[in-house]
Amino acid sequence: VLIEVNSETDFVARNDEFQALVKNLAMQVAGLAPEYVTIESIPADVLEAKRSELAADPQVQSKPADIRDRIVDGQLRKWYEQVVLYEQPYRDTDQTVGQLVTDAIARIGENIRVRRFTRYQLGEDL
Amino acid sequence: VLIEVNSETDFVARNDEFQALVKNLAMQVAGLAPEYVTIESIPADVLEAKRSELAADPQVQSKPADIRDRIVDGQLRKWYEQVVLYEQPYRDTDQTVGQLVTDAIARIGENIRVRRFTRYQLGEDL
Repeated sequence: VLIEVNSETDFVARNDEFQALVKNLAMQVAGLAPEYVTIESIPADVLEAKRSELAADPQVQSKPADIRDRIVDGQLRKWYEQVVLYEQPYRDTDQTVGQLVTDAIARIGENIRVRRFTRYQLGEDL
Repeated sequence: VLIEVNSETDFVARNDEFQALVKNLAMQVAGLAPEYVTIESIPADVLEAKRSELAADPQVQSKPADIRDRIVDGQLRKWYEQVVLYEQPYRDTDQTVGQLVTDAIARIGENIRVRRFTRYQLGEDL
């Protein structure tokens, strides 16, 4: 796992709490294999394809249109919790990773964000 | 830098010489910022675009057609030495990185290859 976490100053980047946060975030990426940092960073075509796929389900199709949209929205939220780092549950806490980062920002007093990550899975197809 | 180097067996993957090779390869990627593992792994459209760019140079255009091709081929080889990991010079030796890997294969007695790498440059645009 390679992860880039940005702070505003070098001072914070060298801070022990920041370093621990980066390590925990890297372990999260290793363990739960997210694909995107935030919901906003999901490419529009990927999101549209996922929405169409969920809407095409016969069980969803059998419902009235307004209910259909709500079901798909709910399923998209569940999907975010799987593929979006900031929406994933953090370990066995009831916090998301995004909340963990927000807490760290509050404690450290400086903006912090995960800019990108790369994860290699042994044996995965390229 | 994240790098995946494949051997045929776990036995070799745990070998000290193999581990040292992986470390040296990662340092090579960090220092010389290659973009591709091998010449063969350059996407065809990228290679074609590079060839056209080199051929469009007025100095090249002023030469007869057969000489033009030879000049462009020579410039492509120089470009490979910059952007292709296996074609880059290894540190201050007169070996390429590809030769370093070939030597390691001979000594360790098992096929070894760099499968992929990812390099983050601080501050680079995404």
